[in-house]
Parts: sequence; C-alpha cells; structure tokens
Amino acid sequence: MQCTRCGSERVIINRKYSGQMLCGECFIETTRKKVMKDIRKYGLIERGDRVLVGLSGGKDSVMVTDILDELRNRNIIELEAVTIDEGISGYREDGIRAAGRFCAERGIPHRVVKLKDYAGITLDEIMKNPSRGACTYCGVFRRWILNREARKSGATKIATGHNLDDECQAIVMNYLEGNLENLTRIGPVTSTAGGRFIPKIKPLREIPEREVGLYVLARGLDVHLAGCPYASGSFRREIGDFLKQISVKRPTIMYSTLRGFDKIKESLIKDMHGGRKSGTCLICGEPSSGRLCKACTFINELGVNEGEVHSDYR
Amino acid sequence: MQCTRCGSERVIINRKYSGQMLCGECFIETTRKKVMKDIRKYGLIERGDRVLVGLSGGKDSVMVTDILDELRNRNIIELEAVTIDEGISGYREDGIRAAGRFCAERGIPHRVVKLKDYAGITLDEIMKNPSRGACTYCGVFRRWILNREARKSGATKIATGHNLDDECQAIVMNYLEGNLENLTRIGPVTSTAGGRFIPKIKPLREIPEREVGLYVLARGLDVHLAGCPYASGSFRREIGDFLKQISVKRPTIMYSTLRGFDKIKESLIKDMHGGRKSGTCLICGEPSSGRLCKACTFINELGVNEGEVHSDYR
Repeated sequence: MQCTRCGSERVIINRKYSGQMLCGECFIETTRKKVMKDIRKYGLIERGDRVLVGLSGGKDSVMVTDILDELRNRNIIELEAVTIDEGISGYREDGIRAAGRFCAERGIPHRVVKLKDYAGITLDEIMKNPSRGACTYCGVFRRWILNREARKSGATKIATGHNLDDECQAIVMNYLEGNLENLTRIGPVTSTAGGRFIPKIKPLREIPEREVGLYVLARGLDVHLAGCPYASGSFRREIGDFLKQISVKRPTIMYSTLRGFDKIKESLIKDMHGGRKSGTCLICGEPSSGRLCKACTFINELGVNEGEVHSDYR
Repeated sequence: MQCTRCGSERVIINRKYSGQMLCGECFIETTRKKVMKDIRKYGLIERGDRVLVGLSGGKDSVMVTDILDELRNRNIIELEAVTIDEGISGYREDGIRAAGRFCAERGIPHRVVKLKDYAGITLDEIMKNPSRGACTYCGVFRRWILNREARKSGATKIATGHNLDDECQAIVMNYLEGNLENLTRIGPVTSTAGGRFIPKIKPLREIPEREVGLYVLARGLDVHLAGCPYASGSFRREIGDFLKQISVKRPTIMYSTLRGFDKIKESLIKDMHGGRKSGTCLICGEPSSGRLCKACTFINELGVNEGEVHSDYR
C-alpha cells in the first residue's frame, strides 16, 4: 500500500468514497484543504471576522479551532473560544481542562461559562427528573448560551465542530419526525433570522467523524475523548449508529444524503415564501419563533427559582 | 384488557400510536374503514374503474385484493388479478398457488405472467451474475410488466399491496441516496406521466406491516408467508429493520415520516416547474425518462438473446 498522493508507504487511511490511500501528512493536508475550500464555497468566513468558537475540548471542536487558528495566524480573522460547562460531573471537567490547555498553548483567548449561571440549573440536576431527552435540553441551552456569549463579545460568527455524521444525523432525525421547520434551519451557515442571530458556521460539515478522530491523532492534538454519559440510547445516537453501519457497504451514502438534503432545503425555503415565524423572546430578547424562546420555555418548565439565575445573565 | 371499542375481552392488538386496544372484529372493521377512508381521501378509485391488482399471494397483496373485492361486490369497480412469476424457484410457486386459490374462491379473474416471457430471462438466471441488487431488477421489471398487462386489459387503475413500512422504506432510501427524482414519484397514486401511465394506487399505504399480517390472520385468509430469498441484506431490508426498531419506542414515527414527506414532495414538485423528463422508450413504447426505459436498459445490459423474448411481448 502506497500513499496515492506522495508514494509514501506509511498509509494511515483508505478513503473509500474517493479511492485515495493517504499517509499522515497527505491526510492532514488534503483535509485542511477540503475545509478551507468549503469555507470559501459556502462563504463561511470573511476577512476581518471575529469568530467565537464553541470549544468543548472534544475532537470536533479542537479540530475546528486548530484550523481556524491558521486563519488567525494569517491575520484573516480574530478568534476566541468559549467552553460551556453544562454541569455533567465526572465528564465535563476533563473537557474543560483539555480546552484550557489547547488555548493556552496557542494563545487563543478562552473562557468557561456555566449553564448553572445562565439557567439556574445544571444538566445533572435537570436529568434527575427530566421530561425530555438530555440532548434536547443540552442542545437548546448550548445554542442559546453561544448566541448570548457571541453578542457580548461582539463576535461576527459562531463556529462549531459539527461534522458530516452530526449533520446527517440531524437531517435524518428531522426527516423521520417530519419536522420541516427544523430542516430548513440545518446547513453550513444557520439562518440569521434577519440579522438578529449571529451566523453559526460549521466548517467541518463535510468531514466524516472518523476522519476528525484521525486528524486529531495525526496532528498529535490533546483532546477529551470520552463520550457524554447522557448520549447513549438517544434518538440521535440510534440514527448515528445506523448511518455508520450502512456506510460500511456504501461509503458515499452520507454525502448523497447531504447533497439531496441541500436541494430539498432549497425547494422547502422557496415554498415558504418567507412564511417562517420570527419574533423576539419576551424574557431574554433572543430571536424566537414563539413568545418565549425554547431555552426560556425550558427554564420555566423546570421550575427554576429566578434567584438561581446569575444576575449577569438576565 | 378490554376492547376500547366494544368492551370484548378478546383483545388482539394494542395500537400504541392511537391508544386503541381492539378485539379481532373491531380490528378488522377499523382497518377496513381506514383503508376505505384513505381511498376516498386520496381519490384512489372512482365508480366504474377497472382495477388490475398485482397479486403475489403474500399478505399485502391478498389483503388489498380482499378489500377491493368488497368494492367489486358492491358493483363499484371491476377487478382482476395478475401474478408475476419472476422465476425464483422454491419460492414463487407457493405464492402462485395461494393467489390462484384465493381468486378461484372469490371468482376474481386471475392470470399468471412470466418474467421469462417478457424479458427472456428469469430472476434466478439474472442473479447468477448480477451487477445490481435483486430488488432493483425485480422492482423495475414488475412495474413494467404490470403497466403492460394493465394496458392489455384496458384497466383504468393498477392496485398494489404496498403498506406503511414499504412506503417509509422507499422514502428513507431515496432521502439517503439523495434521489429527488425518485422521491417525487412516491405517493398514494403514482405519477401518470401525462396520462400515458395507468395510475398505480396503494390503498394500504397507511397500514403498518404488522397490522397487514394481523389482518390476514384475523380474517383467516390463506396467504404465502415466506420471505423472498433475495431480499436479505438488501438496502431496503436494512432500512426496514432500522425503522421497525426505532418504532418500538416511537410508535408514531412512520406516520410522522410519511406526513413530513408528503409536504416535502409538494415543495419539490412546485419547484420543478414541470421540469421532469418524460418521453417514450424506443424499444417497448412505455413512458420513460431516457431514450430507453429501465426495463429495456436492463434487458440490454443482461445480454438477453432477442429470440428468448416471447413474440407476444414485443
């Protein structure tokens, strides 16, 4: 086996969807080029952007920060990182440490913010008596916190580490649930709700999860590898396992799902004639389709004592 | 446990998606009513239709024939059945016998037609050296043969036994493969290609597969229960297993998939502005998106000797 790009015999990956066999260096280089190409193709970043990256310390967010750091070094963007502490004991601490070490090494400004301060409750506390899945709470709260942190920072873009598998999972979940409103919000750049949301970008949207893992290994990046204790048995996880399994025999299937979805989304949006609901949450002032945004709805449902919410966050 | 409809204690089904517990009689009655309602809702049948049903002898096609037979007895439609012998030895013979017995009992005109006569080759022969999955060949050839048989009969509708699971499998397969052209062809009535195709109707589209099985049992219908030997390991089967598995915890998921799809399809069709390709196959004269229809393309690919095709079928 030889690297199909440079002839080296130290092949670390057989990319079945493209026919490439690559050594470590060529794998890193082609992957970075692919991400940079997607950034240009989808117009994810402009010169002068101030990018806030959501950095959990896991492989995906570390990889995207590593690549954005190159743009920072070339003086194309400003970069800062935020780690959200959801309050998952025995799990989140290691991620926070990995994120802190990575940013200290690179000189990237970094801060940690707590769900407890924002919502008056931790995820562990919520999960003692939950009426929804952990990922539902966590996803809504993390998006909400990132938006608010970005606004505080004057960020012009929010970057996340979502990879190809994540994106396909979201697409298939919403196909199966018949949730067209959610489907129209999935993409390389999320809807900006008429400029009131700070655009959220996903530079790794076309990188398969296993290549994200290989990238951080090949680059020798120090990441937090544990899986979230609440993720097992979730709908998303079941769909993810299924997609991985069918990808073994059909290496291009996640790409065909993504391409098909991008076209379906265009048709859905045209057909909506701007009919998407868009207002402002009466409590926090964030963009919202109803009177309250989902995060404030959850805080209300969870019966959190208003005094528990840190005054800085109201 | 009591039947939620009549109070009988002989409950045979707990319909988790509706909360109903039903005895055999109430199950049969509610299921027939549901199918009749869907026939009206989607305009599947008009008084005076001449319906050709594709009857394999399996549970789905026997159930749909049983229900259509009621419309025949009420003098709303004329009904005839065609069984296609694909040439799968050790499997198809039993289905043909079951179909024959059923039609003889009811006095429904019935005939058996062979893939070998139409295409010059059996499925067993194709599968000795296939370049595609068995279901791909079989699906294309069966649709093609049904269309041609219906035209010979002067039928105004072609009915098939596709159930909710089948429909969701087709939807998810094409979502994953990103095949938008195929997606727009899925529905309770298939596209008529400007009147050149005889409309194909699926009265059982909203009946879950397990209820089809229960229906034939509860009605005491004699069906061929074996599974096709070529179906295992197919993409469709893998998707079907996955959908069944996630339905256990989420009993309404196939309905939400179907509802979501029906809306997506509307948007896709509007966005096509009649851009769907539609021509006539140069060999058989059937409607086709290319110069040759898929069936004639396959026959050509398979290198069938023209002399093998029965002259009646050319």
